[in-house]
Amino acid sequence: MRFERLATDGRARLGCLALGHGQIDTPAFMPVGTYGAVKALDPTDVATTGTQMILGNTLHLALRPGLEVIGRMGGLHAFMGWRGPILTDSGGFQVMSLAHRRSIDDDGVTFQAPVDGRRFRLTPERAVGIQQELGSDIAMVLDQCPSYLAPREEIETAMRRSQLWAERCRRAYGDGPGALFGIVQGGVDPDLRRRSFEALASLGFEGYAVGGLAIGESAPTREAVLDALIPLLPEDRPRYLMGVGKPADLVAAVCRGIDLFDCVLPTRNGRNAHLFTATGVVRLRNSRYRFDESPIEPDCPCPACRHHSRAYLHHLDRIGDPLSLRLLTLHNLTYYQRLLARLREAIRTRCLGECAADFERQQRSGPAVR
Amino acid sequence: MRFERLATDGRARLGCLALGHGQIDTPAFMPVGTYGAVKALDPTDVATTGTQMILGNTLHLALRPGLEVIGRMGGLHAFMGWRGPILTDSGGFQVMSLAHRRSIDDDGVTFQAPVDGRRFRLTPERAVGIQQELGSDIAMVLDQCPSYLAPREEIETAMRRSQLWAERCRRAYGDGPGALFGIVQGGVDPDLRRRSFEALASLGFEGYAVGGLAIGESAPTREAVLDALIPLLPEDRPRYLMGVGKPADLVAAVCRGIDLFDCVLPTRNGRNAHLFTATGVVRLRNSRYRFDESPIEPDCPCPACRHHSRAYLHHLDRIGDPLSLRLLTLHNLTYYQRLLARLREAIRTRCLGECAADFERQQRSGPAVR
Repeated sequence: MRFERLATDGRARLGCLALGHGQIDTPAFMPVGTYGAVKALDPTDVATTGTQMILGNTLHLALRPGLEVIGRMGGLHAFMGWRGPILTDSGGFQVMSLAHRRSIDDDGVTFQAPVDGRRFRLTPERAVGIQQELGSDIAMVLDQCPSYLAPREEIETAMRRSQLWAERCRRAYGDGPGALFGIVQGGVDPDLRRRSFEALASLGFEGYAVGGLAIGESAPTREAVLDALIPLLPEDRPRYLMGVGKPADLVAAVCRGIDLFDCVLPTRNGRNAHLFTATGVVRLRNSRYRFDESPIEPDCPCPACRHHSRAYLHHLDRIGDPLSLRLLTLHNLTYYQRLLARLREAIRTRCLGECAADFERQQRSGPAVR
Repeated sequence: MRFERLATDGRARLGCLALGHGQIDTPAFMPVGTYGAVKALDPTDVATTGTQMILGNTLHLALRPGLEVIGRMGGLHAFMGWRGPILTDSGGFQVMSLAHRRSIDDDGVTFQAPVDGRRFRLTPERAVGIQQELGSDIAMVLDQCPSYLAPREEIETAMRRSQLWAERCRRAYGDGPGALFGIVQGGVDPDLRRRSFEALASLGFEGYAVGGLAIGESAPTREAVLDALIPLLPEDRPRYLMGVGKPADLVAAVCRGIDLFDCVLPTRNGRNAHLFTATGVVRLRNSRYRFDESPIEPDCPCPACRHHSRAYLHHLDRIGDPLSLRLLTLHNLTYYQRLLARLREAIRTRCLGECAADFERQQRSGPAVR
């Protein structure tokens, strides 16, 4: 992995991140391809949205189709037919949010798989090993991620454990073949965040992720965490804000120096006809769109906007045609990727502040409805 | 509408059918786009399968999104973004198979709509009027379609009524703007079929459909009906076998002189991972395909076969990703359209018999499984 900063504007950085499966421009947004597919989209579709890199969920993939299948097919890239880079999570967050009958100890976590009730054990070594078997370009350390509302004591215990696990992950991952990112935890406490980062920095990671956010905190709370933490992070390593977020959240985080994002929002909301546009959200399920001949967004180059009216897409959603899942996901991802491209261009030309103000003004103007 | 026969081989005909929205080569297969979409496919997708013309279901469309929407959007072609020709059914068959609380009289049929329980009345004039509002290139007469197992008396009553309705449809449709096809009924009785056709012929239709089949009869029974009926039909009018069928059924019917087909089989079966190939059916849901690196069909140009392994498609089907619906439908439609293209080429070169024998031999060889 190589990471080059090409330009900066305030704390924001325009970068080029070179990975085993190609190089990407940062700041970048990664759609979530939980089970080896960005739901409803073919890899060819994903590429047409301007997506450069995707995220795969390690735990889901280890359960279905399982590592034996993906391994025999030559890894996740070959299995799903995605040629660009892939980042995989460690499975830690999914264990906390999805698994039943979970028991966590210093060595790792044991749980019952949500799919078939199988007993499954995840240790730092196993989490890293699975990601290597998947062939991900960026692997994440296994961490324990408590609620930011948890008592400070619990957060500290999780941090201490995450620190031990980070060491074991670093050792297990060795020199690659890809990159391993550490995850800074510590809730909303600047002091815990600093200590978490310093402990990780002593191990040395190719990049640093901000974990434990996007779980219900307010935007100002999240931004305060970024404001306190990011100045501590090394300039020459990519920074990844996990699980964030809404378009406005991305703009705010890019301004604060974040380079990588992932979130289910554009894909999940797309499937529910909740569409992002420059002038705000269009809830296409609303019957006001029944006769609306205009596209979701007039200047959007996605297939939904180029070929179809809101009225037709509203109808497809109403009858439950799977085509609507694909088209509306394509629109939302195209919107996200164009927003990121606009932010990158603004950093290059050093007018990010103006770009962010424009963004907010446009969003407030509200969606055009005929 | 113009219909030109370019070549014949036995009873089979290679034709060119020119309609308001372009011309198509016959024999041709029309996928079913019930609600203004071939399920899971974008019109661009549909075109890539080699599909020239699609079928729309009048009754479904009249209920959802309704004629007011489609009318204001400029007709069905504009609404759904399909540029090629569209044939619409009359709604008669759907009333019989789907509607509740149905009451039929000589003037028309009243029923409760399956979607919202609305009372809906379909008369010959209304069936034709709706199809004209949809802007279909080929409209079908309203007919009453009893089971071929019904007592002869019931079949005769339905025939007499269908005849009255055909007259009223012919009058209501006038000169177009498209073409109106009559539907020959009469079950499996050659005499009833002949009488049904003669009555229609006296009214004069742009084409003739064979109705009342594809509802459970055996292939030999259906082929006997075609063998008895088709020699009576005018050579210079297209012949449409409604609702048929499996690949082998299409081959048999093309050999007997049929020009147009529609069927839900490739699309519906595709969505259930039941895939057609030159060497027989692949039931992709079977776990034998879990590790199968080969494509569904090696020489198939569809995106599923070009980009993905059976193992990946098996996985997508298993996790229920909507992408599998699209990819597997694309494969099945591509298979059907390539089969039709092969039959057309065989008629042109007058080797249809050999082509049909090859087809059968290959099918019997069974799907290659690694």
